[in-house]
Amino acid sequence: MTTAGPRVITSLTNDRIKAIRALDMRKERKETGLFVAEGTSILVTARDAGFEPTSLVYQAGAAGSPLSRSLVGWALNAGADVLEVSEVVLSKLSSKDNPQAMLGVFRQRWIDLPEHVGNDDCWLALEEVRDPGNLGTIIRTVDAVGAKGIILVGNSCDPYSREAVRATMGSVFAVPMVRASREAFLQWRSKWRGDVVGTHLDAQEDFRRAAYKGPALLVMGSEGPGLSDSLTRACSRLVKIPMAGKLDSLNLAVATALTLYQIRGGALKI
Amino acid sequence: MTTAGPRVITSLTNDRIKAIRALDMRKERKETGLFVAEGTSILVTARDAGFEPTSLVYQAGAAGSPLSRSLVGWALNAGADVLEVSEVVLSKLSSKDNPQAMLGVFRQRWIDLPEHVGNDDCWLALEEVRDPGNLGTIIRTVDAVGAKGIILVGNSCDPYSREAVRATMGSVFAVPMVRASREAFLQWRSKWRGDVVGTHLDAQEDFRRAAYKGPALLVMGSEGPGLSDSLTRACSRLVKIPMAGKLDSLNLAVATALTLYQIRGGALKI
Repeated sequence: MTTAGPRVITSLTNDRIKAIRALDMRKERKETGLFVAEGTSILVTARDAGFEPTSLVYQAGAAGSPLSRSLVGWALNAGADVLEVSEVVLSKLSSKDNPQAMLGVFRQRWIDLPEHVGNDDCWLALEEVRDPGNLGTIIRTVDAVGAKGIILVGNSCDPYSREAVRATMGSVFAVPMVRASREAFLQWRSKWRGDVVGTHLDAQEDFRRAAYKGPALLVMGSEGPGLSDSLTRACSRLVKIPMAGKLDSLNLAVATALTLYQIRGGALKI
Repeated sequence: MTTAGPRVITSLTNDRIKAIRALDMRKERKETGLFVAEGTSILVTARDAGFEPTSLVYQAGAAGSPLSRSLVGWALNAGADVLEVSEVVLSKLSSKDNPQAMLGVFRQRWIDLPEHVGNDDCWLALEEVRDPGNLGTIIRTVDAVGAKGIILVGNSCDPYSREAVRATMGSVFAVPMVRASREAFLQWRSKWRGDVVGTHLDAQEDFRRAAYKGPALLVMGSEGPGLSDSLTRACSRLVKIPMAGKLDSLNLAVATALTLYQIRGGALKI
């Protein structure tokens, strides 16, 4: 344990506070490679996953609990800026609809398209997902089914935005993520030796009846338009989720979860 | 077709515009029993479901398409206030993140706890759901599986909020909804003759292996705390959704969808 104690900040014009607030902007997150995660529960997940914060911010007087103290110790040991701030300052740093008494700044983690894939592995590719809440929920579900990671194909919303991170409930620290252009993805997919599964309105096969040959790569299209023609053609197996009445689509996070549980179901036991 | 044409409004202080803006507040929605639905696609769903707007608002010049003209005709025939407004006025009425060129005001529809339930029917009860995006997504999924309706137990978020309505993608007009206190719900449940299914962390039965005796009533707890003790005791069958690793929960809309597809799966064909 270092002996350097936290510094107390009450000014919104403090440079370190301004730098954290700036991470609300995607441009700033891209340039710095940093992001914000809020709440002690998510911070514990980060710690357990081996992440270390570059900064830790907490409200003055809110670090009295053993959990909070241990998180502060973790941050200090990691050499992070540990900032004790006034309630006013924290309220400007926190999300409005779900304020937390502690938040951390972390380095984003991106990996390359995987070269080695086991026969039982499952990966998810998302084409141009738009809604950060959907993306965060999908990251949480990928973690829950034990899939290996997510490939964001084309122009995707940012998994490190505040809304997405919150929706992951901490799984953002557990699920490897890749960014790829459509071209790079298709090139990589050409070497995939198992099924490449897409959900499609015109498919003739019920997603519950298909036998998926591992390793499985599930490809989901974006909200609204669904899979593009080029990614549809890249699928070895197109399946459909049945719906009642005249409906023709489900929420993207719901459709992804239903299909992932079908593909990964055999590996999951209570 | 009536000959009364639409009136053009450019002022934000117009009483009718102010009344529609006030529907952003839950209190106002409760007092008036009205709500706002945005976008031609959702409005078509409303029309097909037999709803009629009390007001229809569109941006000046935006009613040139056959679809827009037919929606204006539908509203005029229903005796609605049809308001052609400036872009500035519409931007104040629309949601910021997903502005639409047309919106309608409708009467909320609430039904009583159902007295007659068929053997193959499925109902969903949600205990104190908090997130309007989750609730809207769940309404959409209930529609997709052909369940009969949703019972909101206790203090629930508002299915007629803008965010919830948008997440339903129009299913808010198709899915019957009931509000009930926990006491009224438990009283009604005591006469339920099929399975009352709850998902619970301590359950010993895999949700995919259970045989559900119809009519099925699925009871889901709120985000975070899950099912209360009293509603847990009201279940005839507790099941668990398996998860990999150390995770102990899924997003509520995802967990609800997985369980509903399991219960209703036999009735759904592609």
